[in-house]
Amino acid sequence: MQIAVALYDRVTALDAIGPYEILSRLPGASLSFVAAEAGPVRADTGRLALVADSSWDEVPAPDLVLVPGSPAAPTGDRRLLEWLRAADAGTTWTTSVCTGSLILAAAGLLTGRRATTHWLAHDLLGSFGAVPVAERVVVDGRYATAAGVSAGIDLALDLAARIAGPEVAQTIQLAIEYDPAPPFDAGSPRTAPPSIVDRLRADRHLMLDA
Amino acid sequence: MQIAVALYDRVTALDAIGPYEILSRLPGASLSFVAAEAGPVRADTGRLALVADSSWDEVPAPDLVLVPGSPAAPTGDRRLLEWLRAADAGTTWTTSVCTGSLILAAAGLLTGRRATTHWLAHDLLGSFGAVPVAERVVVDGRYATAAGVSAGIDLALDLAARIAGPEVAQTIQLAIEYDPAPPFDAGSPRTAPPSIVDRLRADRHLMLDA
Repeated sequence: MQIAVALYDRVTALDAIGPYEILSRLPGASLSFVAAEAGPVRADTGRLALVADSSWDEVPAPDLVLVPGSPAAPTGDRRLLEWLRAADAGTTWTTSVCTGSLILAAAGLLTGRRATTHWLAHDLLGSFGAVPVAERVVVDGRYATAAGVSAGIDLALDLAARIAGPEVAQTIQLAIEYDPAPPFDAGSPRTAPPSIVDRLRADRHLMLDA
Repeated sequence: MQIAVALYDRVTALDAIGPYEILSRLPGASLSFVAAEAGPVRADTGRLALVADSSWDEVPAPDLVLVPGSPAAPTGDRRLLEWLRAADAGTTWTTSVCTGSLILAAAGLLTGRRATTHWLAHDLLGSFGAVPVAERVVVDGRYATAAGVSAGIDLALDLAARIAGPEVAQTIQLAIEYDPAPPFDAGSPRTAPPSIVDRLRADRHLMLDA
């Protein structure tokens, strides 16, 4: 199984690395980081680069595509959208994390489909023709989308179970000791203190340029 | 506040990137990825490189050091251990994720201290002079250690609250939508099905060369 994780300038690193840490452990999987060209790709904070091992042309037909998000999701990047459309024609799974779903939607792949994204970007996802759903992981046919940033870990474990069975998924979960214990219950706008939600809405440019 | 995340050959990427995604959002923080030399550092799966922006010499006195783990934690890397000892003399926080605590312990920094590591490596941590504790995040003085791989996210939110206060930590948690919902309760040897624990113990080389 060939897995392609798309990279692009200003990608949010955890969106890509959470799922990578899980999907790369699937038996028989070969995972590539794919970008416009092989080489370093700068993450959104400016303090990190991830190295793409392949260019779009080198990975034309992956079985699974994962598109991470960014505060500046490149919904107008023609080459990326063309690669996604061509790859999607042959995938078993086309997936995204955070605002990566905006890119899938901009490529026309989520039109009329249920999908999710970062909680600050639900309206924007709807404007690209998808049907925004406020859930952590949304599966509609072979399209699987995750909510913001850290939700990619839950998405990838769900995919691992669907692809290789629950025992493999559980073994990977135990390998990465994913027994989360956040010190606060503030990870969702439904549970965070209202003052924190308001604060982030006011500073939404931190997560979303648009 | 200067934050240094140490990188080295065969590092486990999520150990570094989980905390980075949180700590780099602390107000006034400047985060560097530091390695023997600046440039790409290969992760444990062989399919990814993270780019270090600085060498040990360039970041001699960080306020916070974070050492990620690896299946092959370089507990005999003299230059890394020397850098850690020198940096530690001036840190506010010296921290690790997963088997990164073996490296801190090998540098002599955890002798007699309560600390944690990947659940498969507790005995090994004890053999380096630390007092292994089966908790997800362990704080002993200015030494804070996390359990395996994904536990670095919980560690970093805990540190964010201690450094910048609970409101900042909660705002970051909401920004990365950390409202975890693992599809299985298999992330700890205490909760995973015994057959899964046995399976990973038999394949422990996947997580630990030693």
